[in-house]
Amino acid sequence: MTIDTVPAGLRGVAVSDTAIGDVRGDEGYYHYRGRSAVEIARTRTFDDAAALVLDGELPDRDPGQHADRAGRAHFRAELAERRELPGAVHAILPTLAAAGSEFAPLAGLRAALATLGAADGLAPVWGSTPRARRADALRVVAATPTVLAALHRLRHGLEPVAPRDDLHGAASWLHLLTGAEPDPRAAAAVEHYLVATIDHGFNASTFTARVAASAGTDVASAVVAALGTFAGPLHGGAPDRALEAVDEIGSPERVDDYVLAKLAAGDRIMGFGHAVYRTADPRAVLLREVARGLRDRPGGEIVTVAETVQERTEALLAEHRPGRDLRANVEFWAGVVMHLAGIPREMFTPTFAVSRVVGWCAHVLEQAGTSTIIRPSARYVGPTPSV
Amino acid sequence: MTIDTVPAGLRGVAVSDTAIGDVRGDEGYYHYRGRSAVEIARTRTFDDAAALVLDGELPDRDPGQHADRAGRAHFRAELAERRELPGAVHAILPTLAAAGSEFAPLAGLRAALATLGAADGLAPVWGSTPRARRADALRVVAATPTVLAALHRLRHGLEPVAPRDDLHGAASWLHLLTGAEPDPRAAAAVEHYLVATIDHGFNASTFTARVAASAGTDVASAVVAALGTFAGPLHGGAPDRALEAVDEIGSPERVDDYVLAKLAAGDRIMGFGHAVYRTADPRAVLLREVARGLRDRPGGEIVTVAETVQERTEALLAEHRPGRDLRANVEFWAGVVMHLAGIPREMFTPTFAVSRVVGWCAHVLEQAGTSTIIRPSARYVGPTPSV
Repeated sequence: MTIDTVPAGLRGVAVSDTAIGDVRGDEGYYHYRGRSAVEIARTRTFDDAAALVLDGELPDRDPGQHADRAGRAHFRAELAERRELPGAVHAILPTLAAAGSEFAPLAGLRAALATLGAADGLAPVWGSTPRARRADALRVVAATPTVLAALHRLRHGLEPVAPRDDLHGAASWLHLLTGAEPDPRAAAAVEHYLVATIDHGFNASTFTARVAASAGTDVASAVVAALGTFAGPLHGGAPDRALEAVDEIGSPERVDDYVLAKLAAGDRIMGFGHAVYRTADPRAVLLREVARGLRDRPGGEIVTVAETVQERTEALLAEHRPGRDLRANVEFWAGVVMHLAGIPREMFTPTFAVSRVVGWCAHVLEQAGTSTIIRPSARYVGPTPSV
Repeated sequence: MTIDTVPAGLRGVAVSDTAIGDVRGDEGYYHYRGRSAVEIARTRTFDDAAALVLDGELPDRDPGQHADRAGRAHFRAELAERRELPGAVHAILPTLAAAGSEFAPLAGLRAALATLGAADGLAPVWGSTPRARRADALRVVAATPTVLAALHRLRHGLEPVAPRDDLHGAASWLHLLTGAEPDPRAAAAVEHYLVATIDHGFNASTFTARVAASAGTDVASAVVAALGTFAGPLHGGAPDRALEAVDEIGSPERVDDYVLAKLAAGDRIMGFGHAVYRTADPRAVLLREVARGLRDRPGGEIVTVAETVQERTEALLAEHRPGRDLRANVEFWAGVVMHLAGIPREMFTPTFAVSRVVGWCAHVLEQAGTSTIIRPSARYVGPTPSV
């Protein structure tokens, strides 16, 4: 018996239960484990948020009142000790970095994580213990920025730098990319972005990780699968393309001409609209605040341009595409924030991968706790079978 | 609005239209493009079947009557010219082969195909032409056996052998594995297996490829994603485990003790039962015939043991698990066939990947023709959001 009345693309179809988080598109609200993700981004580090999403609770529950900080230090150490790459991965990085196309950092990450899975002997989640699976997830989360930064540096003729034990989250990421002492304000800005983008419902890449995990594969394989989907241009999460639009506009008085020309041509305007939100994207609201805090930095005038672009574009979209609720999305402001934090444009989407890998791993661990393989059906619509 | 009444694992939920094929579990029948897959396996080569599944029709429609064989020769040449690997992939193969665990050949294939995608500059399917996507699919199909055989040989201290233009399908695969002139009967037997396992509905790995393709990613990325799911122990397609059971039993008179002990322990019996078929698995029926044809070969007495194992196990399962319709599945006889064809056990599942990659690619190409991203929802079941 086949159920063939579900909406195209499974839109709105609840395929699983989850306790990781939820996106309420009509309220402009999303949460991790029941806690407002935007609030977590405002008040917590990336490591704290990763612990919340992966383990289900913050490593210290009430930092103001005699907090037991051992939990946080322990979680940080668990990540820090898993950042160094196995020899087999080191050995292939120069080739991966050179096998270049514009997609190189993410294609290289897939190859490196597949190799890491084999080199570290990651076991299938099906049949392994929750403790072993969690350790594998931490390994993949911790190794991801090391791999991506090394690929970036090798591509530009620079030696990879070793992770520093005293740096975490965005500061560690900026250090791995640049080899320099990270600027604290840049790190704080990027930390907001990382925390805010750890998880966001059953988007296509997260769903891919869950399908792979449902077959019982190891954590690295499931993340590699998710990364394949993540590389798709329809997936979203390409803040560089949104920033290109801001650059192309260049100055506030040119916004209307640009937007009206795009609308007349039927083109999409990068950085606007979202599959789920019918309100302002709460991540865009947060990151606009963060960008404003960087206005005094070199190049900070882009914030003013971006604000005008947002306001005029939203107004024109409301007029010309009524009822569509097209507002600035996370990518729009993420691009501005990463640019002002000094991240090279080609590393914007890889930076997104640094945070989202936490969400993928949490979903893999949750899916591993069930034993239902995700195996749908299809409607055959071809020629009538002859034999 | 969320639809939350679909069956667990999307079982029986038609998520897409497809013209590639269909599996009729109640009839014990499956087809490729409207033609009985078993009949295709009996009468056609792997290349013919690949053309049928990928392009929608056989390269020559009626070989008996003044057939235009140019179609077949052309398709063969299209595959043959895409077998050699780019330098970047060659460069990493020794490291991938050494990064060994029991999952090494398939983890290595993921890494190699991710690298091939970057080295060859495969473009996202979203926005590329059908012609370009098809060429990329042929590239991935043709490179897969070259990669897998090279990894196998390197792992055993042997140099990879270059593909031979005059060999195709199973003969080429056996040559790449062994470096020797392939035995024609062994090749014919494996060819049946390859053709019969090209495609089989929306299983978890095929669905993974479609989800990735729905985000617009390139063909190699979608196949790498599918391979992540394929590696899962719940996916099926591990004929080595089914053969291990036959080995463990050893002789016909020990079948009952073995099966009853497994049933008493609540263990699954490898090689029996299928998610979709409520009848005999038509692939098992075909491959049993093929195995019988190899009975006179060295070690051919395993066919008699396997026949007894099948008959007694099916009888005992019918008695002890009534109503479950547990019969020998494709893996059961595939293991026997590959063993008698001289394929090393660790290459049984990789051999399956050599054929299934064609099905994955066909689904990627079909999915690329739509623009609906597969992005479901979930039911949040965690703590009530606090902030």
